[in-house]
Amino acid sequence: MSDPAADARFLARNAAAVHPAGGLEDRLETARREGRPLRVKLGMDPTAPHIHLGHVVVLQKLREFQDLGHRVVLIVGDYTARVGDPSGRSATRPVLSGADIDANAETYRAQAGRVVREDPDLLEVRRNGEWLDMPMERFLALARIPKVAQLLERDDFSKRYAGGKPISLLEFVYPLLQGYDSVAIEADVELGGTDQTFNLLFGRDVQRAEGRTEQVVMTMPLLVGIDGTQKMSKSLGNHVGIAEPPEEIFGRTMRIPDELIATWAELLAVDLRSEPPDDPRARKRALARALCERFAGEGTGDAAQAAFDRLFRDGAEPEQIDEHPIPAGTVHLPAVLSDAFGVSRSEARRAIQQGGVRIDGEIAGADGLDLDADALRDAVLRMGKRRFVRLVREG
Amino acid sequence: MSDPAADARFLARNAAAVHPAGGLEDRLETARREGRPLRVKLGMDPTAPHIHLGHVVVLQKLREFQDLGHRVVLIVGDYTARVGDPSGRSATRPVLSGADIDANAETYRAQAGRVVREDPDLLEVRRNGEWLDMPMERFLALARIPKVAQLLERDDFSKRYAGGKPISLLEFVYPLLQGYDSVAIEADVELGGTDQTFNLLFGRDVQRAEGRTEQVVMTMPLLVGIDGTQKMSKSLGNHVGIAEPPEEIFGRTMRIPDELIATWAELLAVDLRSEPPDDPRARKRALARALCERFAGEGTGDAAQAAFDRLFRDGAEPEQIDEHPIPAGTVHLPAVLSDAFGVSRSEARRAIQQGGVRIDGEIAGADGLDLDADALRDAVLRMGKRRFVRLVREG
Repeated sequence: MSDPAADARFLARNAAAVHPAGGLEDRLETARREGRPLRVKLGMDPTAPHIHLGHVVVLQKLREFQDLGHRVVLIVGDYTARVGDPSGRSATRPVLSGADIDANAETYRAQAGRVVREDPDLLEVRRNGEWLDMPMERFLALARIPKVAQLLERDDFSKRYAGGKPISLLEFVYPLLQGYDSVAIEADVELGGTDQTFNLLFGRDVQRAEGRTEQVVMTMPLLVGIDGTQKMSKSLGNHVGIAEPPEEIFGRTMRIPDELIATWAELLAVDLRSEPPDDPRARKRALARALCERFAGEGTGDAAQAAFDRLFRDGAEPEQIDEHPIPAGTVHLPAVLSDAFGVSRSEARRAIQQGGVRIDGEIAGADGLDLDADALRDAVLRMGKRRFVRLVREG
Repeated sequence: MSDPAADARFLARNAAAVHPAGGLEDRLETARREGRPLRVKLGMDPTAPHIHLGHVVVLQKLREFQDLGHRVVLIVGDYTARVGDPSGRSATRPVLSGADIDANAETYRAQAGRVVREDPDLLEVRRNGEWLDMPMERFLALARIPKVAQLLERDDFSKRYAGGKPISLLEFVYPLLQGYDSVAIEADVELGGTDQTFNLLFGRDVQRAEGRTEQVVMTMPLLVGIDGTQKMSKSLGNHVGIAEPPEEIFGRTMRIPDELIATWAELLAVDLRSEPPDDPRARKRALARALCERFAGEGTGDAAQAAFDRLFRDGAEPEQIDEHPIPAGTVHLPAVLSDAFGVSRSEARRAIQQGGVRIDGEIAGADGLDLDADALRDAVLRMGKRRFVRLVREG
């Protein structure tokens, strides 16, 4: 809590937007004057316990607030998980059981702990079941706040409505409940991705209707995944999970297009200033090492890089590996080799028997030729010294 | 519970619609087979305790179900009154306090007792607060049932949405709660005006989603008020209240246009078969007498008719009285007479002093010439023997 103007500039440097403009500096100033830390809210989504770099963009921002002495309030949406948030999705989410939600929340928290500080002065974890299990009468009073037209303006709702896809009343209830979380925990600031802008701003409406000071909303850009085109998402398979082994973090990061290096570094707060500006390969390797160090532990970056290099020790550049599609279900390895490299199945079988076929650097055994396509996804298949393909899902 | 087919025909004879077609006969047949009465639901609206003939159309239908041995379940919407039903309205209703709701419900029930039988085997009065004060989790599960597009198809919602008028989320919750009432009280049949069709049919959706047998929906036409054009409504002033004095019931009924006599008789179940078919005046007087007898008590019909005739004893026909608009607030009687009859104010004052001016048959005194316009509304103002006007609100 040093200089509010400087802190606000630092925090907002890589944000997509701050609402209202100038609000963050004002709030930081208020906190300094009152000698208290800000309460910075993030709603976690316990339906998706697999944290990837897309989540890290926001978690990293929370960490920066903590480093300035502010208090992060993580909301486990155990109640709202029963509602489902359709943000950016075309279908409603499945309902989760209480036990699933508990397990997911615990996993989420453990993973988030790799980014945010767990010092109890700087981190508060709350479950919205604490306050959302309210009397119906209280809820009915709150339900006077949102207007239907306002809800239908939300991008995904308007698209689904226009496209004749169902939106349940429950989904209209969700932004209200999420907004009420801000009232309950007295949020000064709420963070989220730009796809959450509507819900975060709506929290301000609920706070105002309840006679509270409106939170400042800070949105972060959505991280593009390793495919270089779409928002990072586990369901698209273009993600880098932070709980994955360092080799996986390294290898997947190395697949991003060069144009993404600068954005990733900016949003994930990786400092590449000591790397040569004109050498994308060196910069990307430094980025990948830094992410291993941060998420898999100190010293894992160099080791992951060495493993990556061994895999490609014959000089094949990973960027040059062609993709080879395989169907879902069980695939027969000699058939895949035959298709991928234009060899006969008997040649392929012989190569396997001679230990000349590797999957992600591991020699493929001759005793299990029928393999699960899901397990092969994104694996590098190599035959002999110079033939490589990356196996991808067909279609 | 005699012949299901005959009972269904009788009950449906003056209904607007029965959903599904043939459903009522089936349900009556089921009841007979199971040796139990049907449970026939009506949601009352405790925000409007002044029951008029518009409400009687539906209450009379309930009475017919009772007369066939079935059980009426009146739902006091104490919970839903906190929500407000925008049916047929362009604005949201005010929120009522618990005490207001209690008082209104008691008034409603006392008035409804003039139409329906209060025998506890035939009438059950329930408050939906009994079951709507549910845990939030239960509500959230129910909120999965309605779809936003379906709600927006409701006539008044679609008009308000298209017209840019606000619809609160709370109003979208209302049909769900009303539908859940049908689940809670195990309704076999629900009655309402045609303006309630959406909500009543929606009850079937909620019952189906909850694994219950879907209710039969019977809608009744909306009674046109004494102005001969609009749906009867207290706020339009075209109503006949059933708790009013018999002279008022008689006089206001006499004001309906002749074309309405047959519809009123049909919807209010007044038998005019013994009246001369070609004499609208006689038929209307018989209708007015019958309504007095039913709501104000036996013997009141003839007395009210006699009072009415005294008021017009000079042979002026009430149908021929012109309307004369007066402004809101306080009006000066000599000024009104001057405007209405084209006399000077001094002539008007003289007529008053001589006892030649009557308001609804009562001689107007010379000591209070400034009168409240609201109290004069619909009154017949008479000067001398042959000059009459009916005072109405300006605009």
